[in-house]
Amino acid sequence: MSEPTDSQRMEKIVSLCKRRGFIFQSSEIYGGLNGCWDYGPLGVELKRNLKNYWWRVVVHERDDVVGMDGSILMNRAVWKASGHEDTFTDPMVDCRSCKARLRADQLVEKKGIKQCPNCGGKDLTSPRAFNLMFKTFVGATEDESSLTYLRPETAQSIFVQFKSVLEVSRKKLPFGIAQIGKAFRNEINPRNFTFRSREFEQMELEYFCRAEEGMQWLDYWKEERLKFYENIGIARDNLHALTVPDEERAFYSKGTYDIEYDFPFGRQELEGVAYRTDYDLSQHQKASGKSLEYFDEETKQRFIPHVVEPSAGVDRTVLALICEAYSEDEAPDEKGKMETRIVLRFHPRIAPIKCAVFPLLKNKEPLVAKAKEIVALLRPHMYVFYDETGAIGRRYRRQDEIGTPFGVTVDFETLGEKDPALRDTVTLRDRDSMKQERVPVKDLPSILVSRIS
Amino acid sequence: MSEPTDSQRMEKIVSLCKRRGFIFQSSEIYGGLNGCWDYGPLGVELKRNLKNYWWRVVVHERDDVVGMDGSILMNRAVWKASGHEDTFTDPMVDCRSCKARLRADQLVEKKGIKQCPNCGGKDLTSPRAFNLMFKTFVGATEDESSLTYLRPETAQSIFVQFKSVLEVSRKKLPFGIAQIGKAFRNEINPRNFTFRSREFEQMELEYFCRAEEGMQWLDYWKEERLKFYENIGIARDNLHALTVPDEERAFYSKGTYDIEYDFPFGRQELEGVAYRTDYDLSQHQKASGKSLEYFDEETKQRFIPHVVEPSAGVDRTVLALICEAYSEDEAPDEKGKMETRIVLRFHPRIAPIKCAVFPLLKNKEPLVAKAKEIVALLRPHMYVFYDETGAIGRRYRRQDEIGTPFGVTVDFETLGEKDPALRDTVTLRDRDSMKQERVPVKDLPSILVSRIS
Repeated sequence: MSEPTDSQRMEKIVSLCKRRGFIFQSSEIYGGLNGCWDYGPLGVELKRNLKNYWWRVVVHERDDVVGMDGSILMNRAVWKASGHEDTFTDPMVDCRSCKARLRADQLVEKKGIKQCPNCGGKDLTSPRAFNLMFKTFVGATEDESSLTYLRPETAQSIFVQFKSVLEVSRKKLPFGIAQIGKAFRNEINPRNFTFRSREFEQMELEYFCRAEEGMQWLDYWKEERLKFYENIGIARDNLHALTVPDEERAFYSKGTYDIEYDFPFGRQELEGVAYRTDYDLSQHQKASGKSLEYFDEETKQRFIPHVVEPSAGVDRTVLALICEAYSEDEAPDEKGKMETRIVLRFHPRIAPIKCAVFPLLKNKEPLVAKAKEIVALLRPHMYVFYDETGAIGRRYRRQDEIGTPFGVTVDFETLGEKDPALRDTVTLRDRDSMKQERVPVKDLPSILVSRIS
Repeated sequence: MSEPTDSQRMEKIVSLCKRRGFIFQSSEIYGGLNGCWDYGPLGVELKRNLKNYWWRVVVHERDDVVGMDGSILMNRAVWKASGHEDTFTDPMVDCRSCKARLRADQLVEKKGIKQCPNCGGKDLTSPRAFNLMFKTFVGATEDESSLTYLRPETAQSIFVQFKSVLEVSRKKLPFGIAQIGKAFRNEINPRNFTFRSREFEQMELEYFCRAEEGMQWLDYWKEERLKFYENIGIARDNLHALTVPDEERAFYSKGTYDIEYDFPFGRQELEGVAYRTDYDLSQHQKASGKSLEYFDEETKQRFIPHVVEPSAGVDRTVLALICEAYSEDEAPDEKGKMETRIVLRFHPRIAPIKCAVFPLLKNKEPLVAKAKEIVALLRPHMYVFYDETGAIGRRYRRQDEIGTPFGVTVDFETLGEKDPALRDTVTLRDRDSMKQERVPVKDLPSILVSRIS
């Protein structure tokens, strides 16, 4: 059997995501909506585990970070001050022949002449700036006075509340404000499954510090964030911290790292860690006329802090987790014949379901009753799944395919029918090694909790 | 001291929310955006605790419910089929004198003649339907073909994915699909703080069942949901299950309960529990041409299931939690003089911070070191806050005011300086009774975990 190509691998991943309920096309029964995706029963659990782990390590386990949750609709003045209204654009060209609207870099060039990739037409408008923010109107009228945008990033919610959060949290520099939330960009060409979508979720930290410490904190956060990805099961070899060259950085940034992952469709950014200096707060101070300065009680100085921003994409990290986890190996089927086994090797910390509980047979009441007892025993500690349908081997395979790290089987030995010494023990199966160990039911919660946290 | 009036009480609550960082006006430094709110460091924790508890009891602790997370932007066809494009409207009137746009029920009537409440003008247009959905355009053009809406409810995401979720989850009737997410309504008159806002979050369950069982499940879920509110600390006396009369129910509903709460501004709806029959799925089946039927393996019948929908507002429940928790009593200040104490009596399960840890003095290194050890001991189990600033009494008050149920103080007895038997014990203070008990440090995790879960 030859190794599948990257594009075959990606096709299999996309197919698994739909087949097992990780990710669906939004509004699929109506033909979908390009660039928008829904998370199914397993996808929503995976995403929750990722977001909760981020919140735990970025907010709860630190003394120097607090959270917030800002609205998606904000006053339009925010986007004027941040520069998004004027400069958050892609250059677009219209084809006068077929009326297609195209990104300037998508035109085809033949014999030095630019052509429409749709119809081959050469009658094209010159490029015009197309703003990527979604517009809407808030209030009873539809005019300039009621126009605003869906936020294209969560960061600005934090900057405009900097002073309020500083006051209520009584923090001293350096300190951070963290947020998880949705953002929207009207991408002309959404692509690579959920990687580049029009609606997406961000996990952002704005870490405020003194100007002279900016570069150190930039490096500190780059390292912290790499550790984070390793701690959710992404191999260090598949992660890359790219130093963004001077000419590609935003003009206000003094240093930026892109944390990239080797997706099957190429090496792509998971997270940017950017030293944004005092640009954002200065812009909002100027535009709002409200002081966004920090008062240093020791030196009696007032100044606008600098900021380092680790900004991660939730959806693309979920996709990276699935790509990283996807693997195929060989395992015996019910008749002992070797077959291909699909396994999602998720880190137990982020696996959607932590443990599946199986009675060996569904028509044997004491097995079923015992299995349900075990479900009740484990449920206060983790997300558990009960399954009594089909041959036990097929039930294992179904769990392997969705990345459940542990399986508990209640058999006749659990009931003490063969050997009284084995009464109230179960087999605990490991997804990756497929090895089974015999453990007492009462030890299950502590054994499993230690392996999933 | 006379009891404060309801409106005084509400003012105090709003003021506390801002002062201590529960809720801020969105884009406040730019004058805000009417009907949009941001959650500060404590608000975001309270909201997370509420949503996580809902997810735990509605999804994780049940075998018959799975979750999903749909996109906010959906294909416009969804809103045509659901009826929102045609009928999700308020009647509006324009004043030709001052150009104000008004909700028809907000006009003032003098001597039988309707007048503009702004300018007193009588030259008014006749009422026209104003759609409450926010419009936007997806893609490169702005025309009818690219028009869609921000979802005005999360429910339709579930209905249009009913078949996909059914297939991947292999559930049998009755079963439910749950979702937490944002929705948007262009309310003409947002009011009552965060209660009626333009951007809000919903926690919705669509529970599918056979037609003949609809009324039973309606009653079941009404009771379950009332229990939920009691379990997060809302007194049963302040909750009301209103049977919505026939003439006020949606035409397709065979029964609806409104679960209401006694806010300081009046009795208002927290959640609707509606028996929606097969209306929604039928509409989408008709409009999409895709079968949304359920196949019953036992009877070999195919049919569209009925649905009962418990639909709760996250933001209004957060507000109810704060209103319910707010109280004032008397406590001695540092000199023993009685003063008014503000306490948020949150249920420990939903309190933003579970435990505050204080060294008695901040300039005594062994006290500080021990306190930080305790923070590290508790952190894997709960959100902990460390505070060393100010007199201990003032530190207690600050935690009372934000509803932290427990306070741990490290004093000289903890260090064993006075009585060796008290070494490695701390005082554990209860927010509500203000009573202190002396407990061994090593017992803190188990004592606190049992009280907060």
